Amino acid sequence: MNFDAKYLESYICDVLKAVGLTEENGNIVAASLVSANLRGVDSHGVTRLPIYVKRLKSGAVTPNPEVRVIEESDASLLIDGNDGMGQIVGVKAIELGIEKAKKNGAVYIGVKNSTHFGTGAFFIQQAIKNDMVAYAMSNAPSTMAPWGGIQPYLGTNPYAFGVPTEKNKPIIFDMATSVVARGKIISSEQRGEGIPLGWAIDKEGRPTTNAKDALEGTVLPFAGPKGYAISLMIDIMSGVLTGAGFGPHINNIYGDFDKPQNVGHFFQLIDVNRFMTANQFKSRVDQMIDEIKSAPKAEGTEEIFLPGEIESNTENDRLQNGINLGKEVFESIKQVGEEVGVKIENYHQITL
Amino acid sequence: MNFDAKYLESYICDVLKAVGLTEENGNIVAASLVSANLRGVDSHGVTRLPIYVKRLKSGAVTPNPEVRVIEESDASLLIDGNDGMGQIVGVKAIELGIEKAKKNGAVYIGVKNSTHFGTGAFFIQQAIKNDMVAYAMSNAPSTMAPWGGIQPYLGTNPYAFGVPTEKNKPIIFDMATSVVARGKIISSEQRGEGIPLGWAIDKEGRPTTNAKDALEGTVLPFAGPKGYAISLMIDIMSGVLTGAGFGPHINNIYGDFDKPQNVGHFFQLIDVNRFMTANQFKSRVDQMIDEIKSAPKAEGTEEIFLPGEIESNTENDRLQNGINLGKEVFESIKQVGEEVGVKIENYHQITL
Repeated sequence: MNFDAKYLESYICDVLKAVGLTEENGNIVAASLVSANLRGVDSHGVTRLPIYVKRLKSGAVTPNPEVRVIEESDASLLIDGNDGMGQIVGVKAIELGIEKAKKNGAVYIGVKNSTHFGTGAFFIQQAIKNDMVAYAMSNAPSTMAPWGGIQPYLGTNPYAFGVPTEKNKPIIFDMATSVVARGKIISSEQRGEGIPLGWAIDKEGRPTTNAKDALEGTVLPFAGPKGYAISLMIDIMSGVLTGAGFGPHINNIYGDFDKPQNVGHFFQLIDVNRFMTANQFKSRVDQMIDEIKSAPKAEGTEEIFLPGEIESNTENDRLQNGINLGKEVFESIKQVGEEVGVKIENYHQITL
Repeated sequence: MNFDAKYLESYICDVLKAVGLTEENGNIVAASLVSANLRGVDSHGVTRLPIYVKRLKSGAVTPNPEVRVIEESDASLLIDGNDGMGQIVGVKAIELGIEKAKKNGAVYIGVKNSTHFGTGAFFIQQAIKNDMVAYAMSNAPSTMAPWGGIQPYLGTNPYAFGVPTEKNKPIIFDMATSVVARGKIISSEQRGEGIPLGWAIDKEGRPTTNAKDALEGTVLPFAGPKGYAISLMIDIMSGVLTGAGFGPHINNIYGDFDKPQNVGHFFQLIDVNRFMTANQFKSRVDQMIDEIKSAPKAEGTEEIFLPGEIESNTENDRLQNGINLGKEVFESIKQVGEEVGVKIENYHQITL
C-alpha cells in the first residue's frame, strides 16, 4: 500500500494539531517528516510521529514555541528555541537568517533549547531556494565513544550542506557522523543477523560482528579519528558555542520524558550574490556536475552520482508512485492518530 | 642530526629572501613550514622549499603579492591573492578577516588566485589566538576520482578547524579528505611494499593492494561517499564560489611552471564573544576535553586524544629536542640554498 505524500502530510499535520500545534507549526513538522520519506530517508520520516506525540503530551516539548533572538551581531544570531520541536525552531531560525544574510551578506546561526530537528536536508532546501549556500548541523544524544573510548559521549551528529543549481538537481549532502545509524544494528539483531566489522565496538571496545554485543557497545564514527573529529566539531558548534547541552548532557528523545532535550543546532547561510552573481555561481556548479557526471566510470559502476542526486531521484519516484511505509510504521501512526481522535480511515484519498 | 626550529626558520627565510620575498613574507612562509615539521606533519614542512623556490624562479608565483579585497559585505570578503604563495595570501586574508569579525561578529572569506597554502592548522592557530572559532579549507590539484569514477577530479582538499581553550591545548583538526596522502603510496612503491586495501583504486577502478597500480589509479576519499561529498563541498567553497579554479582546472604545483596554480581557499571566523563571553566558551570546551580525557578506554588504548593533541605533544618535544629532517630532505634544502647563495653551513647554530 503506497501513500500519496500530500494526504499523508495532512494526516500528520492533523494529528499534531490535535496535540496542540497550530496549523502553521503542524505543517512544518509534517512537511519535514514526509519530505524525509519522499527522499528515501525513512528513518527520519513519519516513523517518528509516535515519539514526537509522546513528548508533546508529556510536556517536555513546547507545541508552539516562542523562537527568540537572544544575541545578535551583523553576522550572527543566537536563538533560543523555547524547547520547541527542532523542525519548527529550525525553520524560523533559517527565516531570520535568510533575512539577515540578504541584508548583510551571510550569517552564522546558533540555536539552543531545541529538540530533534529531523533531517538537515530539509533546512538546506529552504535556504538554497533563496540563492544561499547553506550548512545545517545538530548535536544529538550520545551514542558514539570518543576515538579510543568505549563509553558513548558524542551523538551521531548530522552534517548537511547544499548549494543551488540552475540546470541540474541541487547538490545536497546530509550525513550522520557514524558509519551507520544505530537503527541498522537494531534491525540486524532483530533478524538474528551479524553486522559487518567496522560498524561498532562491544562494551570492552573490541571490534565486533555480533549485533547484540554491538548494541551493548557503541557505534563507530566514519573514517575513525576523522569522523570523531568532525562529530566533535559539530557538537562544539551546536552545543558548546550556543549554550545548549553537549556530549552526554543532552537528554534522550526516547527517555527523559520529564525534561527538555536541550539539543543545539548550528546553521550557516551565505548569499552567493556577495561573491559573484547567482547565475554565474549556478552555472559554475552546473559545469562541475556535468564534468563529474560524464567522467569515466569504474568497472561495475553504471552512473556517477552527485550528493543528493539519489535522494532527489527517489523523491521524483515517490511523488509519482507514493510512499510505501510498511505495515509496522502504518500501524504505529494509525494508532497514535486514534489516541488523539484523528482517524487515518478518514483520509481515504491517502492511497493512490 | 636534529635542527633547532628557530635557526631552521631563519635559514628558510633567507633562502626565500634570496629569490625576492620581503623579510615579512619570508618569515610567514618559513614559520608555516617549520611549524608543520614541529607538529609532525613533515609532508608539509621544509621538504616543500625546493618546489616553492622553483615556482618562484619560474615566475608562476608572485613573491610579494598585493592581496586585495575585491568584493565585500558586512559578513564576507572575497580576496584576490595575486598568485602569491598561499601562506602569505592566507595570513593576510585572516588578518583582514579578524578585523572584520571583531567589528561585525563573524566573517566568511573566499580567496582566489592563490597557491598551495601549506597546512590549514597554521591559519587556525593565528585565528584562535584572537578568540575566534576558525575553519580553513583549500582546493588542490586533482588526484581523487568522484565516487564511482576512475579519473582524478577532486584534490585531497584539506579541511581544518579549531577553537581556543584556556586550560587545555586547543582543539585543532587538519585532515586531508583522502584516506591517505598520495605520498604514502609513493613511499610504499619505493620500498617495494604493498598498500592496505581501501587506500586507492587502479586505473580500471578496481581496489588494489599494489602500490604501482595504485599510483596509476587514484587515491580514495575517506569513508567512501561521505569523504567524496566533503571534498566536493570544499572545492565548491574554495573554487566555485570564489572564482578560483576547481576540479581539474587547477594547475599542478609540480608541473605547469609557466602558469599560476589558481588555487582557492575558504576561511571562516566567528568571534565567540558574540555567543557568550570568551571565558565561558573556553571553560565549556575545557569541560568537554576533561570529560573525554577521563572517559573509560578501549582495551589496548593508553590514552584518549583530542584532535590536535598529538601534534601539540610532538611540537613540545621537537621544540625541545629539535627536528630530525632526515638526510634526503636536509640535502635538498641545502642544495636549494646553495643555488641562491645561502649556505646552510653558515647557520652553524642550527644543530642543537
